[in-house]
Amino acid sequence: MNEKLREKESEKMNGAESVVKTLAASGVDTCFTNPGTSEMHLVAALDRTPEIRCVLGLFEGAVTAAADGYARMTGKPACTLLHLGPGLANGVANLHNAARAHVPLLNIVGQHPAEHLRFETPLASDVEGIARPYSNWLRTTKSALEAGRDAAQAVAACYDPPGHIATLILTADAAWGEGGVVAQALTPKKPTMPPAETIEAIARLLRSENPAAFVLGGNALYGKGLVAACRVAAACNAKLFSPYPFTRMQRGAGAAVVDRLPYVPQQAADTLKDFKHLILVGVVEPRAYFASPKRSARLVAADCPIHTLAKVEEDSAGALEALAAALSALSRAGIVEKGARPLTPTGAISLPGLADAIAATLPDDAIVVDESMTAGRGIMAAARGAGPHDWLANTGGSIGIALPLAVGAAVASPERRVLCLTADGSAMYTLQALWTMAREGLKITTVVFANRAYSILKYEFKQLGIGEPGQRAKDLFEIGRPDLDWVALAKGMGVPATRINNLDEFAKELRRGFESGGPRLIEVPL
Amino acid sequence: MNEKLREKESEKMNGAESVVKTLAASGVDTCFTNPGTSEMHLVAALDRTPEIRCVLGLFEGAVTAAADGYARMTGKPACTLLHLGPGLANGVANLHNAARAHVPLLNIVGQHPAEHLRFETPLASDVEGIARPYSNWLRTTKSALEAGRDAAQAVAACYDPPGHIATLILTADAAWGEGGVVAQALTPKKPTMPPAETIEAIARLLRSENPAAFVLGGNALYGKGLVAACRVAAACNAKLFSPYPFTRMQRGAGAAVVDRLPYVPQQAADTLKDFKHLILVGVVEPRAYFASPKRSARLVAADCPIHTLAKVEEDSAGALEALAAALSALSRAGIVEKGARPLTPTGAISLPGLADAIAATLPDDAIVVDESMTAGRGIMAAARGAGPHDWLANTGGSIGIALPLAVGAAVASPERRVLCLTADGSAMYTLQALWTMAREGLKITTVVFANRAYSILKYEFKQLGIGEPGQRAKDLFEIGRPDLDWVALAKGMGVPATRINNLDEFAKELRRGFESGGPRLIEVPL
Repeated sequence: MNEKLREKESEKMNGAESVVKTLAASGVDTCFTNPGTSEMHLVAALDRTPEIRCVLGLFEGAVTAAADGYARMTGKPACTLLHLGPGLANGVANLHNAARAHVPLLNIVGQHPAEHLRFETPLASDVEGIARPYSNWLRTTKSALEAGRDAAQAVAACYDPPGHIATLILTADAAWGEGGVVAQALTPKKPTMPPAETIEAIARLLRSENPAAFVLGGNALYGKGLVAACRVAAACNAKLFSPYPFTRMQRGAGAAVVDRLPYVPQQAADTLKDFKHLILVGVVEPRAYFASPKRSARLVAADCPIHTLAKVEEDSAGALEALAAALSALSRAGIVEKGARPLTPTGAISLPGLADAIAATLPDDAIVVDESMTAGRGIMAAARGAGPHDWLANTGGSIGIALPLAVGAAVASPERRVLCLTADGSAMYTLQALWTMAREGLKITTVVFANRAYSILKYEFKQLGIGEPGQRAKDLFEIGRPDLDWVALAKGMGVPATRINNLDEFAKELRRGFESGGPRLIEVPL
Repeated sequence: MNEKLREKESEKMNGAESVVKTLAASGVDTCFTNPGTSEMHLVAALDRTPEIRCVLGLFEGAVTAAADGYARMTGKPACTLLHLGPGLANGVANLHNAARAHVPLLNIVGQHPAEHLRFETPLASDVEGIARPYSNWLRTTKSALEAGRDAAQAVAACYDPPGHIATLILTADAAWGEGGVVAQALTPKKPTMPPAETIEAIARLLRSENPAAFVLGGNALYGKGLVAACRVAAACNAKLFSPYPFTRMQRGAGAAVVDRLPYVPQQAADTLKDFKHLILVGVVEPRAYFASPKRSARLVAADCPIHTLAKVEEDSAGALEALAAALSALSRAGIVEKGARPLTPTGAISLPGLADAIAATLPDDAIVVDESMTAGRGIMAAARGAGPHDWLANTGGSIGIALPLAVGAAVASPERRVLCLTADGSAMYTLQALWTMAREGLKITTVVFANRAYSILKYEFKQLGIGEPGQRAKDLFEIGRPDLDWVALAKGMGVPATRINNLDEFAKELRRGFESGGPRLIEVPL
């Protein structure tokens, strides 16, 4: 195409096309979506942009969490494409989780033209108002001329450390209007190193007063950050922890041993009580999830000083490497997991048996997505000696993340196996993601722990010391009567499924899932 | 109990209990909920308050729409009880629909105590920010002492004409704090009559220039409002219409004939083109749902004057009665539906055949919940001659309302049969409501029109004149591959279901559903 013709083409480009082409130019290669009428010009533009893979979700909660899972595995933003205020609203709960995960994530949302908005038509909505609580960057683009520029800025904003949610709202007239211009990709900001004095001070501390506990988050939990943390810990006999909620942890044979702080506040406090110092790397001080009239939310002992090596938005991995250098900490020996799997268990279903079956069968390089709640608390410990794998947790406590997070992780890492562990109550929130697993042929093995209850609420109710729940309260904690049939639900969405009756069957079905070319589901009755 | 003891009891009441007891005292008798840890004191209070029926939903989108359906049938607010920002967020899309339905609806949402909120714990969220776009009344109650008073004000705010959404956010420390006081119910505001001159002016107009078209909303579509509208229309040969989205319409034998304006803008414009005047009663001017580069959103002919008899927040029924009196319009003859059902159709599935089967079998006093989208456009016309019934539509265009709206309508009207008509794409949004139907044994017959597509998007794409969709766009409009199996999905939630193959089976299954003591589901493959 000669220059003149190219100019002519560009003159004819509408705003929607300039947005989509700019996203592609900025490295966005995946769009999780459930579009509507107002987004048809964007769909038409995506139709002509094969560089961006479109993945349909049948509900937006299954869309935003997929973008989160994608970002956790790639470090890059996927975009969502959502229909006006209501479509965005359906995705907000999992944006809450994504915000706590500090992942880069870009929402593209349609909006009526300004003159249509004032008519109070059925779908008129305050899209900005709905987006605001979870958008670090938020703009409504009302002109095709600015659409490409805004898209490039939105992508760059996603990379603002430690990883942000950007929401670009495109009015329909900006989408269909002519004059769109593809904008060049912008250079994203990088996280800055903490001040040298901070690193030196912590190095001094570690040379003298021990033992210290590290609480790691962000990129301190995988890759070179985790390697450096491991060297530091080995050099000064420190312990490595993650908060109960974390974004991504690399573990298994060859990785540093990082213990997850327990969910139950007293257990977390007991875990931390004997350390002389607590050092935060890319995390805020861990606290109890909920306030309670019975105890403080503090988990760290009152007399334990807390130091911050790297703030959430700083370069945790770089800070750990600098700290390792300051300590001349070269060896990881002593704190690296050597690898040892349990034998495949047999017999009746038990929580330790289920955990061992997972540990015994987990394929190397698997990605484990974990929202197993009360039923799954022993699994992570059991699997520490399995082959190398990544673990993704629910970061924000909004239930219903696991199935779509697994979708995003699998789309990001097609060569890896994904094991999705979910409680039944949580899985019900975004079960539509099963359909996307089937459509995309994703290699996800989903395990539903069906205890037919919000067990955590039963536990919390009792913790509050307000007595035993009566029948009316119990009815709100039990999700049986009728029992959910997960084999039928999975079949209804095109995912083959089995209900297991013992540990032998569980291990067999896990292996079958891991060997399968697509998704499978295993219901574990508890 | 003597006065002293009573005082002592009241001294011991916590904030949560004062909220719940105040709700009961204010006439709230139903709570649709999915609570979490922060709401446990409210659950404990509900446990001790049998005047309020608690109905569990396994996802909050199925909770808020149920409260909407309840309000449409009773005119009273139900309350929801939702878990922090994420729980509320999951319910926002159906709050959008409820806001457009102008129903009274009260959200009770938990929140962390202020000092816990600042810790950035996983579930810390800006609950007010999430509630704001759809809350006409919004307050965070931070003290047990004020909780009862705020609850009474919140209930009263729901009744502000034409019906409002109130959101009361209760911090956990206000819930568990002592000093709660049960507040007296407040007298709710009533809608005011439009000025007498307005009514006189429209009466004058109707005596001289005809024919006029009325577009009715709010309480002009049922009860004494509809009777008066019918008398007016009969006296001056006017036609009665509803907008395509409406809250509740009374119809069938003995009711006024009201035609629903078509969804397709050109069809709506054609319907309205020959009238001399358009008179709005409790509605804003109807417009196309979406802006388009091809045509204006206006549906009323440019030379047709538009008059407002009653604004949305005014007393539509009262205004129509006054207008009927001014016109001495006493008789409804000529515009009342006499009642005539089609014969039960047989043979192959067709859209007219499906509509006739529904019209032929619909029980008297049924409630029809309609989100049948493209597949169902002929059903309402076919059923106009059935026995008396109510029709509830999707008011805000946010898909996924039908199943939970049917739950709310059935809870509100246990003596009536509910027919829930839904497209498959819409039903997927809140399919969790099927479980609540089963748990509560609700007499709801759900028909899923399974065309395995977002057909409306295919249509809208073509309307925009941007060519034929390619494969990538088509993949976003088709929800087959794999096909959803609604019989399995229903079974998975405890609802018996059948897939029909012809109209004979459809009529038989409809009758079976209407005679059943609980929910049933019929999948109609298209």
